[in-house]
Amino acid sequence: MTKFGELKKKPQTALVTGATGFIGGHLVRHLRKLGWEVHALARCTSSNPDIANSATWHKYLGDYESVSLAIAVSQPDVVFHLASHFLTEHRPEEVERLVDSNLRFGMYLLEAMRQQNAQRLINTGSCWQHYDGADYDPVNLYAATKQAFEAIVDYYINVHNLKACDLKLHDTFGPGDNRKKILDHLIEIARTGATLEMSTGYQRLILLHVDDVTEAYVLLANMLLLDNSIESKRKSYALTTAEDFSIRDLVREVENHAKQKLNVKWGTRRSSVRLMLSPPRNFPPPPGWAQCHRLSDYLYKLFPDK
Amino acid sequence: MTKFGELKKKPQTALVTGATGFIGGHLVRHLRKLGWEVHALARCTSSNPDIANSATWHKYLGDYESVSLAIAVSQPDVVFHLASHFLTEHRPEEVERLVDSNLRFGMYLLEAMRQQNAQRLINTGSCWQHYDGADYDPVNLYAATKQAFEAIVDYYINVHNLKACDLKLHDTFGPGDNRKKILDHLIEIARTGATLEMSTGYQRLILLHVDDVTEAYVLLANMLLLDNSIESKRKSYALTTAEDFSIRDLVREVENHAKQKLNVKWGTRRSSVRLMLSPPRNFPPPPGWAQCHRLSDYLYKLFPDK
Repeated sequence: MTKFGELKKKPQTALVTGATGFIGGHLVRHLRKLGWEVHALARCTSSNPDIANSATWHKYLGDYESVSLAIAVSQPDVVFHLASHFLTEHRPEEVERLVDSNLRFGMYLLEAMRQQNAQRLINTGSCWQHYDGADYDPVNLYAATKQAFEAIVDYYINVHNLKACDLKLHDTFGPGDNRKKILDHLIEIARTGATLEMSTGYQRLILLHVDDVTEAYVLLANMLLLDNSIESKRKSYALTTAEDFSIRDLVREVENHAKQKLNVKWGTRRSSVRLMLSPPRNFPPPPGWAQCHRLSDYLYKLFPDK
Repeated sequence: MTKFGELKKKPQTALVTGATGFIGGHLVRHLRKLGWEVHALARCTSSNPDIANSATWHKYLGDYESVSLAIAVSQPDVVFHLASHFLTEHRPEEVERLVDSNLRFGMYLLEAMRQQNAQRLINTGSCWQHYDGADYDPVNLYAATKQAFEAIVDYYINVHNLKACDLKLHDTFGPGDNRKKILDHLIEIARTGATLEMSTGYQRLILLHVDDVTEAYVLLANMLLLDNSIESKRKSYALTTAEDFSIRDLVREVENHAKQKLNVKWGTRRSSVRLMLSPPRNFPPPPGWAQCHRLSDYLYKLFPDK
């Protein structure tokens, strides 16, 4: 029921890139739940039927025109740019894919936004751009392409009045994750009893539940929608928690909840060139954001009968 | 004649990208004159026979493998990376070319250098990355791709021990320039009497003779060859002169030397979105560098009978 004098608000329109990914898929659902009209731009439509019906899908054909068409048709109030190609370490033949996914596609997106006057972007960065808390010191080439893309975003902000901010992500977990990250491996061996080969296990992670992450995207979107200031600079935010975990801490957490010893062989796998021994804490959280989900609650639900 | 106890020094080997361009061509000749062994990596071999015979040419076929082959065959002591696609302003369909030339090619180059253990790079930057003297504020998308590439270079420095520095270029002039820059247009209308349509003419340039620029590349190369310090960070240099010129100053210079009034129609062309009203002076010159050639001497030689 609409009260007298109260206008029915037109729903906001989102365009989500990377919607076929773990966080992107959750974001699509969360935006739909909040009443947003959701469009997705991807190389292929999602095989997840739940998401498939939650968004209008636009196909990226590897060229500028398909991106431009998606922006023209969707007319997004906010673009949520989550698409990227992630690699811990790259081989020479993977450089091309890193350029195409993390720079070329994003540049098409920014140019199409400029041409169609779509003015708000949330860009996704990585804590791995900030090894040992540096302003910039990349852990890997993936992180370097993220940093490179920020320089391109700044051009569109400074010269073409784009309103944009970054959300720098740490590690994430949650239901429906098939990225085969470390936590999933540990949960799997707790269930199967299999053996897992590991490096030293001293690197430290900040781990966030995907629902806390999608909430952060929404807070930033609302901030961009409310912000009418002329002076604009790209601000970076991160979802940093007081608590962080070494890989060895994670093993203990899973062992505690599964009530069993995991078969982990420490030191049998080569470590990455750069091990993150203390997660960077350079950036503030989005205004109003607070962590609502803890790893221990998630693990408790996974191993309820123990 | 070699004195007793004096070893004949093996010549240094250079790989030059962008050798078919104006500065690249001059650099190839200059390095040859100094006794370097010169290799060039380009999409096509030079149509300039003078340069064609001064270098061993390697063909870039748009893929990583051709770049890798050039590095493997040439085994360069120093890579001089001058190749880039320059645009004052871009149209949407030109974004792809900017990515390919200014990011993808350079990333292939860096990766191939890492794989083949080629450890020294001189990267070419632009004063247009530093609008109004900012640490970073790009005049155009071209300048933004230059900044983006620096983030990639830093990855190879920090993680793979590349030794690298940037030379940030302002405007250049000299014999054999067919880039149709403003100075060439003015020289041409001084000779033909034709009319030139211009914007306001208030933007200011630092102008350097190409021989001063190639000398700077050689100084930086020698610096990288001598530098055995373990601690390495990318340093940026620029060839900044005390003197700078507005476009209106340039017209007066050419008029003084040609002893005639030029037919310039001010204000009849649209200005760029961002006019550089004061050239940035953020960076030091390469150690030991000094300007040896002045614009007035160059113009004096061009109009000797006046």
